[in-house]
Amino acid sequence: MVDDAPRIGIIMGSRSDWETMAHADNLLKEFGVAHESRIVSAHRTPARMNEYADTARQRGLRAIIAGAGGAAHLPGMVAAQTTVPVLGVPVQSRALKGIDSLLSIAQMPGGVPVATFAIGESGARNAALFAVAMLAADDADLADRLDAYREAQARRAIEDELP
Amino acid sequence: MVDDAPRIGIIMGSRSDWETMAHADNLLKEFGVAHESRIVSAHRTPARMNEYADTARQRGLRAIIAGAGGAAHLPGMVAAQTTVPVLGVPVQSRALKGIDSLLSIAQMPGGVPVATFAIGESGARNAALFAVAMLAADDADLADRLDAYREAQARRAIEDELP
Amino acid sequence: MVDDAPRIGIIMGSRSDWETMAHADNLLKEFGVAHESRIVSAHRTPARMNEYADTARQRGLRAIIAGAGGAAHLPGMVAAQTTVPVLGVPVQSRALKGIDSLLSIAQMPGGVPVATFAIGESGARNAALFAVAMLAADDADLADRLDAYREAQARRAIEDELP
Amino acid sequence: MVDDAPRIGIIMGSRSDWETMAHADNLLKEFGVAHESRIVSAHRTPARMNEYADTARQRGLRAIIAGAGGAAHLPGMVAAQTTVPVLGVPVQSRALKGIDSLLSIAQMPGGVPVATFAIGESGARNAALFAVAMLAADDADLADRLDAYREAQARRAIEDELP
Amino acid sequence: MVDDAPRIGIIMGSRSDWETMAHADNLLKEFGVAHESRIVSAHRTPARMNEYADTARQRGLRAIIAGAGGAAHLPGMVAAQTTVPVLGVPVQSRALKGIDSLLSIAQMPGGVPVATFAIGESGARNAALFAVAMLAADDADLADRLDAYREAQARRAIEDELP
Amino acid sequence: MVDDAPRIGIIMGSRSDWETMAHADNLLKEFGVAHESRIVSAHRTPARMNEYADTARQRGLRAIIAGAGGAAHLPGMVAAQTTVPVLGVPVQSRALKGIDSLLSIAQMPGGVPVATFAIGESGARNAALFAVAMLAADDADLADRLDAYREAQARRAIEDELP
Amino acid sequence: MVDDAPRIGIIMGSRSDWETMAHADNLLKEFGVAHESRIVSAHRTPARMNEYADTARQRGLRAIIAGAGGAAHLPGMVAAQTTVPVLGVPVQSRALKGIDSLLSIAQMPGGVPVATFAIGESGARNAALFAVAMLAADDADLADRLDAYREAQARRAIEDELP
Amino acid sequence: MVDDAPRIGIIMGSRSDWETMAHADNLLKEFGVAHESRIVSAHRTPARMNEYADTARQRGLRAIIAGAGGAAHLPGMVAAQTTVPVLGVPVQSRALKGIDSLLSIAQMPGGVPVATFAIGESGARNAALFAVAMLAADDADLADRLDAYREAQARRAIEDELP
Repeated sequence: MVDDAPRIGIIMGSRSDWETMAHADNLLKEFGVAHESRIVSAHRTPARMNEYADTARQRGLRAIIAGAGGAAHLPGMVAAQTTVPVLGVPVQSRALKGIDSLLSIAQMPGGVPVATFAIGESGARNAALFAVAMLAADDADLADRLDAYREAQARRAIEDELP
Repeated sequence: MVDDAPRIGIIMGSRSDWETMAHADNLLKEFGVAHESRIVSAHRTPARMNEYADTARQRGLRAIIAGAGGAAHLPGMVAAQTTVPVLGVPVQSRALKGIDSLLSIAQMPGGVPVATFAIGESGARNAALFAVAMLAADDADLADRLDAYREAQARRAIEDELP
Repeated sequence: MVDDAPRIGIIMGSRSDWETMAHADNLLKEFGVAHESRIVSAHRTPARMNEYADTARQRGLRAIIAGAGGAAHLPGMVAAQTTVPVLGVPVQSRALKGIDSLLSIAQMPGGVPVATFAIGESGARNAALFAVAMLAADDADLADRLDAYREAQARRAIEDELP
Repeated sequence: MVDDAPRIGIIMGSRSDWETMAHADNLLKEFGVAHESRIVSAHRTPARMNEYADTARQRGLRAIIAGAGGAAHLPGMVAAQTTVPVLGVPVQSRALKGIDSLLSIAQMPGGVPVATFAIGESGARNAALFAVAMLAADDADLADRLDAYREAQARRAIEDELP
Repeated sequence: MVDDAPRIGIIMGSRSDWETMAHADNLLKEFGVAHESRIVSAHRTPARMNEYADTARQRGLRAIIAGAGGAAHLPGMVAAQTTVPVLGVPVQSRALKGIDSLLSIAQMPGGVPVATFAIGESGARNAALFAVAMLAADDADLADRLDAYREAQARRAIEDELP
Repeated sequence: MVDDAPRIGIIMGSRSDWETMAHADNLLKEFGVAHESRIVSAHRTPARMNEYADTARQRGLRAIIAGAGGAAHLPGMVAAQTTVPVLGVPVQSRALKGIDSLLSIAQMPGGVPVATFAIGESGARNAALFAVAMLAADDADLADRLDAYREAQARRAIEDELP
Repeated sequence: MVDDAPRIGIIMGSRSDWETMAHADNLLKEFGVAHESRIVSAHRTPARMNEYADTARQRGLRAIIAGAGGAAHLPGMVAAQTTVPVLGVPVQSRALKGIDSLLSIAQMPGGVPVATFAIGESGARNAALFAVAMLAADDADLADRLDAYREAQARRAIEDELP
Repeated sequence: MVDDAPRIGIIMGSRSDWETMAHADNLLKEFGVAHESRIVSAHRTPARMNEYADTARQRGLRAIIAGAGGAAHLPGMVAAQTTVPVLGVPVQSRALKGIDSLLSIAQMPGGVPVATFAIGESGARNAALFAVAMLAADDADLADRLDAYREAQARRAIEDELP
């Protein structure tokens, strides 16, 4: 495994989820974390999904961020086939605004965990931040940058001016 | 394929779903439809599920009735891997009473259909009745018995006495 | 019954449901399945609905796809009057976004099954795909085309490029 | 039509709805309003329902109280076939506690009204009280008794003692 | 009370509800039913509301159609102070889309009935149709026109053409 | 107004709400705050409610805690008729578990505020604590006791032992 | 503490909440109540929040109006750290329209009260009106102006003309 | 930091959450992962919570599992004050069955991630399994045991017999 092999995999059910999942991609870029972004559909490409899950550990992935909407099975089904931690992002669905996506991802049965984040872009960004925090456990430099990110975020909040 | 090979497969995520799914099993027995009932878990036994889906058609299954609760991925994931019609039964979950199960099964993306029925035992019974109706398309005897079932049902309703 | 008699009936409560139900119509056209599309309202034209249900079997319909929104009674009421399999499509309603339509269609009592699909156009398309799968049980050519459809769908998903 | 012909019809989908609908029956008895209570199921006995609706006006019914649970189609389908006012009572369902019943009854499309009341026994009682109020429009004695009922109700509320 | 005294009162909590309630007003105009439309707010003008309820019967109102949104107290509070039948119309609220309005109107306790209709303009139109049906009980001409309205509605549905 | 005139009024729609509202009553007793508890129903005793609201200020009430369930109109209607602050407690309803009560109380239109608390006994207790905090603004002794209450609460939490 | 020290603090989690919370700010200006508006985020600036809560009483704040959306922790966490009354305003969230904000604010455990108001601008305005009513307890002039505000509001409602 | 210093912290808002959170505790015991379980309440003991969060990293905690119900602020507030990954477990609440807990934990704003799991004991067990998977990233033995756990789980599922 070379140095720039992806450590985090971002997957999503369809091209239309990219608008949401790009927020995870951007955050990992901002932190310089090697990662990959792919379309992997539980329903349309189950064999591809199975292979993705099966090879995740040996490919060196430390976490998989999976975004899906509606009957959102991707995070749970990947988690069923690997012990690499899976972070699920509920994509906002058209009719039910993502409450279906959230329940389909969060309400996993005991035995197969999926870490679920908020519906939509906040969730995508937070899943990526969580992945960074996981990697930071044995990467002091990344830990420092995560602290700095938090501090900058607090500073921006304070400097925000009300009219 | 011998005559008594199962034509309908009933699967469910765990032993605790049997209380619900037995209503499907009983109805198929009542109609004398050859069928099988198995525990096949999307999350705990994904390989077994994949194999079940992959071999369903060649084993002669004409429909698969899949019951699951919570983040209910079983029906959708089987449907993703076979064109044998899948009938999904949302099992009533403890906290959210099955609304999570219903949305996880019904809100499938375009391209991979799952026929969804009501939460709980009504849904299990109706999925089995639907399977009978499917088989009745080319089985005049079964069609007659289905008509008779409906008529008996109407008769019982009418004969029910209020106090 | 001549060869081009409709095998699938698509019905909907009002002209405004067509935007959704056209997705079912288009899919059946794509597969070359003889079908018909009609406005049949449970509430505004109950007599017409009753007649539609009563004559469905003798007219050779193998499935009825019924779309409705709000207090969506059409699928369940047609199912109550025929044993031809009924596939219900919850049309997205204005205020409640289709959760009312979904529950009104899915939560049928034991004894009268309606196969329910997702809210909106995904549901319409999937109901049609499900009908194709039903017909494919005794139509090897259609079965092959359904397999090809699935494969093309998987291929398109894989070829989709992220930016 | 003799004097004791029923003026209000109470119908319900199944025997199990009686626990709820008896509250409507009792209230009409309390007011001495001639009425009938019947099991009429939209799904199991649609022909009986159609006949009930069709003959309601000529039989002298001034209102129909219809109770149903889950995908509660009875009130709306009766209303579709008669202009006799229909009062719908959502019966509490097992899994979803009657929110499905409420939406299936209340969310009728424009053109076919159903007057909806609360889920469960409060709704049953109130539908009956509403029917009494309708009859009271041209029955001064009934109007007086309705006023007295309200006054007694207020008195009881005031006399209720807290510990 | 002269002949053209209003027989139906339409009230609503604020000017912004008119967009919805105008559908009730128009329907009553279409049937030539004498009526009035007023802004009466339970929360902002409780005294006016109390007076409206108190004088409704003596002013000859046969029904009151009350539209309100959010914590929609108007229908229930008017019903608490008169035995004139009250028809409640849940106006679609901004954040929760009218589910709050619907529950606030429909879930009345036993003893004080409010007839609830669908959220938004369908509900407004249906409340008015229901009021017409109530008046038609002793107005043969109105009953005939209601029948004609229903027939025209069915005819239009049938004549609607799909593309 | 003598010294022991009630400063806080606790009202509720019916005797059955006492199980919940007793938690407010007990807390005020614990703090030695003069108060009264009464059954005042918006729907069954509107005149009594109007009088309660109208005289609240002159009777020296500094806050009114109003508990109600289902279509819970009591807090909002009292608030409409007095500027004495109203604290609303959603009582858990049978079918919908208090989500109807919560929305009926919280979703007040701009112009007539009701301070809403949690569903059930936590809400009752918190409404009382909030009333104490209001009174503590000009009662140093009460403020001290509120601080002590908080500290004791923290201490108990810390001393709670896990098995 | 000088005379123009703020008596009410308005805080919100981010700049984007200002669109909602400005309605609280404007109302307090209209009443001439000295107040301050600040961005204080429970999640991004917890230390700042803790300090705000800790110093609120000694700075003379009589109430804190806290607006937040989604997992809206600001009101509850401030309330946990001060006995100054906290008024929570659920800001409408993007996906779930504020039902998440409402539940996160209203469903506080017994022991730490937050007075919750409606989702969005009505809630912001009502929280401010409630704060005015609290201050009016010992400020006769403010009490008079609050009465006048209510009267003007009623007058405007009555003068509103329907088309 | 000695070898048996806790690597995972389990915290919960009150003693009553233990029934749920014990499932996390047991699972960590089963895997022999050093951990601690404490009552830390966001609302009742905010100072203790702040200290817990502030010292988590230096005390060597690799993840914090936080369980809370209703307006469940504990996971989010701990996450706001440490970059140690926080795993949130929604405890089933009395009235709303944990949907309030789930939304209060999952719907965090962008910038402060909380990994959310299912409502109740499944969520508690899965949060612990997720923590094990995190630790397994640099602990080959633990990784092996996690694989074995998964295999045993699959085996048990397969061996489960239907009647």
